[in-house]
Amino acid sequence: MNVYEKSLALHEQAKGKLAVIGKVPFAGQDDLSLVYSPGVAEPCRRIAANPDNAYRYTAKGNLIAVVSDGSAVLGLGNIGPKAAIPVMEGKALLFKSLAGIDAIPLCLDTQSTEELIKTIKYLSPCFGGINLEDIAAPRCFEIETRLKKELDIPVFHDDQHGTAVCVLAGLINAHKVVGKNLTESNIVINGAGAAGIAIARLLAAFGAKKILMVDKKGIVNRQNPATILHDGHAAAAEFTNPEERDGTLAEAMTGADVFVGVSAPGILTRDMVRTMNEKAIVFALANPTPEIFPDEALAGGAAVVGTGRSDFPNMINNVLAFPGIMKGAMSVRAADINERMCMAAAMALAGCVPAIQLDANHIFPAPLDTNVPAAVAAAVAVAAKDSGLARQ
Amino acid sequence: MNVYEKSLALHEQAKGKLAVIGKVPFAGQDDLSLVYSPGVAEPCRRIAANPDNAYRYTAKGNLIAVVSDGSAVLGLGNIGPKAAIPVMEGKALLFKSLAGIDAIPLCLDTQSTEELIKTIKYLSPCFGGINLEDIAAPRCFEIETRLKKELDIPVFHDDQHGTAVCVLAGLINAHKVVGKNLTESNIVINGAGAAGIAIARLLAAFGAKKILMVDKKGIVNRQNPATILHDGHAAAAEFTNPEERDGTLAEAMTGADVFVGVSAPGILTRDMVRTMNEKAIVFALANPTPEIFPDEALAGGAAVVGTGRSDFPNMINNVLAFPGIMKGAMSVRAADINERMCMAAAMALAGCVPAIQLDANHIFPAPLDTNVPAAVAAAVAVAAKDSGLARQ
Repeated sequence: MNVYEKSLALHEQAKGKLAVIGKVPFAGQDDLSLVYSPGVAEPCRRIAANPDNAYRYTAKGNLIAVVSDGSAVLGLGNIGPKAAIPVMEGKALLFKSLAGIDAIPLCLDTQSTEELIKTIKYLSPCFGGINLEDIAAPRCFEIETRLKKELDIPVFHDDQHGTAVCVLAGLINAHKVVGKNLTESNIVINGAGAAGIAIARLLAAFGAKKILMVDKKGIVNRQNPATILHDGHAAAAEFTNPEERDGTLAEAMTGADVFVGVSAPGILTRDMVRTMNEKAIVFALANPTPEIFPDEALAGGAAVVGTGRSDFPNMINNVLAFPGIMKGAMSVRAADINERMCMAAAMALAGCVPAIQLDANHIFPAPLDTNVPAAVAAAVAVAAKDSGLARQ
Repeated sequence: MNVYEKSLALHEQAKGKLAVIGKVPFAGQDDLSLVYSPGVAEPCRRIAANPDNAYRYTAKGNLIAVVSDGSAVLGLGNIGPKAAIPVMEGKALLFKSLAGIDAIPLCLDTQSTEELIKTIKYLSPCFGGINLEDIAAPRCFEIETRLKKELDIPVFHDDQHGTAVCVLAGLINAHKVVGKNLTESNIVINGAGAAGIAIARLLAAFGAKKILMVDKKGIVNRQNPATILHDGHAAAAEFTNPEERDGTLAEAMTGADVFVGVSAPGILTRDMVRTMNEKAIVFALANPTPEIFPDEALAGGAAVVGTGRSDFPNMINNVLAFPGIMKGAMSVRAADINERMCMAAAMALAGCVPAIQLDANHIFPAPLDTNVPAAVAAAVAVAAKDSGLARQ
């Protein structure tokens, strides 16, 4: 059986991947009067008197919703909410297994931006955090922005920020390997969708000054309206391409130190890699078929190559980031997850690879390294406190 | 420590009562590729091809949402969604402990009927059933009716139908004890709210012909508009009070065989019970202070008395009904829970008390008798099949 057949058999046998269990004793009449009526009235009264007591007397503080509308699931596209459940159950399982966070999938039967925002707000009282997942761009930007503003619990869109954290962590370590300075590197990001824009934003916040974003109409350039296709492009144009260059991907690649692809299979050629600066870094994240395969990139002269695949070195996998980020935010009851917390997460993740192990084929820790979520969570919690976002 | 202090300590220590766990192995990279990308794409594709496959490959078939807006919680009133969480967690724990159903509380931050209906519809894809809880009347009628029509999973409002099932079961057994025929008894239901109307409806479906409903304006009478305060009254008036009587509660009680109170503390007097027929049955469900205390009712001549309290005989407790009803409906993937299924549940519940144990102080099984949910579920599943509602 291949991995798909095995996975299908596993899902059918177990009937999904999650169960809900009690964490208090429940054996007889006495327990009934404590976990339910009449005793339960007392925690209810305490929360009615002070809503913050929900963190004290309920599961809220360690419970998140993994929310999707099924509009952009894996590489499968808009397959709808029911078909998205296996992915969201998987995500919830990772939150629990890697960070001890109780997580429940909520796949919503609407793809209207306003209805999604309202629904998530309505269902927020039980939850200590919201993980948005596989919601199509540009809808996902508006939803995340509004919810971050209107809710007092952390809201995290992993497809944007989890990816950005992993890419930044990988670039920090790759720059150590090649002996360059990330803030001085010429960086090309191909694909200015949700992930690409979040990556650009986090790299800029880290200090990268020379970022070019390339999308369908070439290099995104604030002086060239034809390259600005939506609000996301307009926002990214503000802090990228300082020289206001125009051009194709091939033109952008000439003299680049870093390529980050969050775009389409096979779009980067060996010849383009040849035009990059020496000791080039190539992250080709399109999955399952990357923008360029590692052997081609290396043949073109790249020094460090990463992909989204587990069968090549340097797998760039969000599982390294999201469990620790959410855990760190929830551990201090942060009201939000901001850029500073994401940056702290990236630096902590990069730091999980000891100098003695770091080389061109080992810029990340293993995806299930149990030290990673704890290290990331600790750094995120400190950053939340330093940002004034911690509430305990 | 009293029961309230003990309950508070328990809730604080455990930080709520529920946890989410994985039910598939998850130890290393191989498992990751089965529970998550890339393997998970296969169950997603199967569900996209046929949405019914969600029952096959996800937790949906055994997962329900316990939904409340916090508007009518226990006897505490409109305390809002956060303060309702402890009750909903408790309910979810009972579903799991008694019927093996995975249940998750969703306390919604809106009290608008239309918004509640929309929100519950949007969040339905992950769930195999919806248990509505502690939603104020008359909003709860509209919400339940619309959701039953618009969703293809069972929707159950326990405050209405769970109570009705328990009352019918109790009356079946109480009539055995006193040697009367329920279909011939004169029945007075005091309190024509959500529970009262559901009780009247189920008793009528069982064959009770002489039911009087009494509310704030006296006996509900279709010929007397002053007694019809809302749509629920109007509906109940259609099948109750065939003689079109007017009068007070005291007047209704004269010659009654059965009193069912779902109303207010202390509203029934010993003198009123004296005017009932011989071998009267009194169910006084107001909680924690019943319409009449058992000693008073017995002094007035009642033969069988039940209350909602665990410190008197014949505790009428929904925990006897809802786990088995939902389990039975879900076991055959019923599209709905109809009156026939509720009636089957009541008869099965009544049947859980062996004739040899049945007497005036033992008309119900013990609330946590583990035989009860299985017996109720089996009867409900058969009734669902007989009704053509079963889909497997």
